[in-house]
Amino acid sequence: MTTPPITQRLAGLIHGSSIERIPQDVRHEAKRSLVNWMAAALGGCGDESVHCALETLSEFAAPGQATIIGHQARIDALTAALINGISSNILDFDDTHAHIVLHPTASIACALLALSESRRITGIEFIHALVLGIEVEARLLDSRVADYKFAWSPTTTVAGIGAAAACARALKLNETGIAWALGIAGTQASGLRETGGTMSKAFNAGQAARAGLTSALLAARGFTGSRTVLEGPNGFINAFGSPRDVEALLHGWGERYQISSNTYKAFPCGIVTHPTICSCLDLHARGIAADAIESLQLTVHPMAVKLTGRTRPTGPLDAKLSVTHAAAAALVRGKLGVKEFDMSCIDDPTVVRLREKADVVVNDTYAMDEATVELRMADGRIVTAHTDHAIGSLDRPMSDRALDAKLASLAEDVLTEAQIRNLLMQLWSLDRLDDASGLARAAARSSCIG
Amino acid sequence: MTTPPITQRLAGLIHGSSIERIPQDVRHEAKRSLVNWMAAALGGCGDESVHCALETLSEFAAPGQATIIGHQARIDALTAALINGISSNILDFDDTHAHIVLHPTASIACALLALSESRRITGIEFIHALVLGIEVEARLLDSRVADYKFAWSPTTTVAGIGAAAACARALKLNETGIAWALGIAGTQASGLRETGGTMSKAFNAGQAARAGLTSALLAARGFTGSRTVLEGPNGFINAFGSPRDVEALLHGWGERYQISSNTYKAFPCGIVTHPTICSCLDLHARGIAADAIESLQLTVHPMAVKLTGRTRPTGPLDAKLSVTHAAAAALVRGKLGVKEFDMSCIDDPTVVRLREKADVVVNDTYAMDEATVELRMADGRIVTAHTDHAIGSLDRPMSDRALDAKLASLAEDVLTEAQIRNLLMQLWSLDRLDDASGLARAAARSSCIG
Repeated sequence: MTTPPITQRLAGLIHGSSIERIPQDVRHEAKRSLVNWMAAALGGCGDESVHCALETLSEFAAPGQATIIGHQARIDALTAALINGISSNILDFDDTHAHIVLHPTASIACALLALSESRRITGIEFIHALVLGIEVEARLLDSRVADYKFAWSPTTTVAGIGAAAACARALKLNETGIAWALGIAGTQASGLRETGGTMSKAFNAGQAARAGLTSALLAARGFTGSRTVLEGPNGFINAFGSPRDVEALLHGWGERYQISSNTYKAFPCGIVTHPTICSCLDLHARGIAADAIESLQLTVHPMAVKLTGRTRPTGPLDAKLSVTHAAAAALVRGKLGVKEFDMSCIDDPTVVRLREKADVVVNDTYAMDEATVELRMADGRIVTAHTDHAIGSLDRPMSDRALDAKLASLAEDVLTEAQIRNLLMQLWSLDRLDDASGLARAAARSSCIG
Repeated sequence: MTTPPITQRLAGLIHGSSIERIPQDVRHEAKRSLVNWMAAALGGCGDESVHCALETLSEFAAPGQATIIGHQARIDALTAALINGISSNILDFDDTHAHIVLHPTASIACALLALSESRRITGIEFIHALVLGIEVEARLLDSRVADYKFAWSPTTTVAGIGAAAACARALKLNETGIAWALGIAGTQASGLRETGGTMSKAFNAGQAARAGLTSALLAARGFTGSRTVLEGPNGFINAFGSPRDVEALLHGWGERYQISSNTYKAFPCGIVTHPTICSCLDLHARGIAADAIESLQLTVHPMAVKLTGRTRPTGPLDAKLSVTHAAAAALVRGKLGVKEFDMSCIDDPTVVRLREKADVVVNDTYAMDEATVELRMADGRIVTAHTDHAIGSLDRPMSDRALDAKLASLAEDVLTEAQIRNLLMQLWSLDRLDDASGLARAAARSSCIG
């Protein structure tokens, strides 16, 4: 058996990549990904899971090195990567690759942000590293998706390797060093979907950020990892699935970019619920009163049931995985933000009634961003709304201004208006910053806000 | 489908366990496990992998909290757990469960040692927690070994969960807290055998120690993990294998103890090479000169080829996975210690010649600790040595005094004779220590040695 030296060749491609060859629209998508990521992290940074992890880990961390997004306190870079990863994911408001179940940016960006405050990185190097990291994780996930075990959390299993690739590139490691970094990160790949509904789900994103950054820093010092960690008989691909066409992992490298398929959520919950939410908001906008609804039927893609089939949510993390809660809340409130997943909405009697009157029907022919909501009204009428493409899907993307508004809204309890303007300026001009750590400093809470 | 709430019940058993019900011979085996672990860690603590990890991670760690075994410097407890885990595993001199491919003690002991310097734990609580942690990891591995993918490093995938169980118990968490700790550790379960021959193999042991300790500390603060992380449809057992009789995980709890099957290595390399080594040492003792050997045939259990089939080792980590190197070195040197895996032995022309003249034959009927070595001499004679049970196997165990000698030998470059005597005293009397952190302090290098 001749196994192609995939890991080593991948390291070579990362090493040989040149930002000049990456088109402007791809670089712009990287900035959009960062604006969306920062919005999610600022929205999540006050969550009790973040405070709990911070209280626990501060005891063991070197102080003062790196920014904790939306906090005044600073902490060592590795712990910052972990904490910021939790903030980025806890609201389920992060990005989604349109063709793979992957939330690509959070772990990589958290690792790079922390790294930028320990080692000098320019803004364009940050963007270049992010594009490469996402390229690696999306290709990895795609390459073994065929017989992928559903128990694994897809994003988490590849996010550490993506973060390692990004940090190794930002640290300007040579080909061997990049391969070692992939090797050290590969053996830490983990993450179970059973964490859904607990704080550990968001911890997965933080842990991947920390593992990726640690791997690159270790490799930079000469700590050795397997240079066949991906394709080797006892490597990543064999462990998590079985190899199909392993060579496909490298096909068309540099011709198209995975980050171009990135999409951003308009609602802070599982992406597969979004077309249903769009239909419900449409019905609310048409003046349908929740009290007048007798029952409802949601017709959805099979993944919407598989991933968000919870019917009796008991808390915010749980409710984000419930398509029936999302539908009921959207019909009652006419909007679906972070507050529609708190206990007052989960326990709202009108929401509870509609949630329990909702039937979910799977339609195999539906696209993932398609859904139909059919209401049976108390007066016997049937009212229907169909969504071809949810807001925020590749066919109906969030605009740059909508992403600005998302960040401003999620940051309003954390940063002043002036700070929000400055942060957005840093994000959109990141490619021109000589020192990317300015971005991290702009994301810290200053002493002038409560 | 009604899934039994295995994780929660396991947490209940850990919570309800009482040291009074654990027999003296089991407690004594725990101390033997600790002596052997400390020996391996003291032998490994000067390895370049340890120095490299320490240089990399010191930048990010709070100083001064916890002992780095065999070093003067102190570091935060989480990083200490990781570094000591690397030291414990790098020589491949750690313990082995006789019936499962599991090296049970290292990650758990490193997590508990670090914890003992941050939170007050008595010696008997340390021992109790170790027994429980090993119970959990051995049962977990056994429960899903049937269709276990060979790419995973068995020990590493369960070691973090075992360490979390032990630390959660030592922290006196309630049943829910223990279940959360198992949940947080379960989603970090990882470790690939592709790391063999690189520093990342030992890193796996350290990472599991760190993850387990982190999980218990987070759970103690209320950070939530999945309470169905083991048996849930998207949990550990489903991810790493497929469930057989999941209930078997808890069968006979408290009736017998997994630690009673623990064994300790006389040679610092893959356990499956040990019967071959015994036969070769036997032949050397009979006066066979290496130069007079024309060729040799090793008859072994299939796992000896699968795990240690490397034929052309290029470095110490590689050589530990080569049964032909072990055989050749034992025949030439008449002993097999750490020095028989350094480059001067790997490149010794006589060793190289014998290594290349060695044929390995698999015999499916052999036990794992059985081997035959047949020499064809230059004068045409055939000389044979058969080993029924390798030294250090369950049928031919290392004595307490042999374990003392192993520690003294591996510690000789690190501790003074008086320090070695004190350390052994702390280990053998651990059950009577009011404060287990005395053990950690005894394992530090003092300023009076070079």
